[in-house]
Amino acid sequence: MHIHEFQEMMRRLYFHRDNERGVKGTYNWLADELGELGEALKANDKEAAEKEFADVIAWLTSLANITGIDLERATINKYSDKCPKCQQSPCQCTF
Amino acid sequence: MHIHEFQEMMRRLYFHRDNERGVKGTYNWLADELGELGEALKANDKEAAEKEFADVIAWLTSLANITGIDLERATINKYSDKCPKCQQSPCQCTF
Repeated sequence: MHIHEFQEMMRRLYFHRDNERGVKGTYNWLADELGELGEALKANDKEAAEKEFADVIAWLTSLANITGIDLERATINKYSDKCPKCQQSPCQCTF
Repeated sequence: MHIHEFQEMMRRLYFHRDNERGVKGTYNWLADELGELGEALKANDKEAAEKEFADVIAWLTSLANITGIDLERATINKYSDKCPKCQQSPCQCTF
């Protein structure tokens, strides 16, 4: 599934709800989901981690919807087959 | 671009580096990137926010790589044209 297609699906499912909640509230939900992903990874629970990865990308995408950002375009603009910092593939950054 | 294609690009660019850093360290970088997205949104800086959205999905995807998770499959398994909680489209959850 294209990132853009997923963003459109999230728009159909959640735009009304997340737009009403607003950017700050939706960002806070996303931050909570990232915390849950961290817990699943710490517990080494792969099944739970898969669901939490899905939740993080879902909330991130819905947040992009309510802020008017095309997530696929933003992603490709920054990451297009080379590291945006060192311009190499694979990345050769030393940090 | 498919989510899976993006994950493969992230693998070529960053797997060696992020796998060496490990799950905890890479998760912490992802959390930092989410913080930067929050700052860009708070400042209402759309150009910065686009770059931070890209960074968050990039780090999330690289984290999925080093934990052996197929992000597109995990995402479609949970979100497939209806809300996983209320089973409706659009979502009718009341929380």
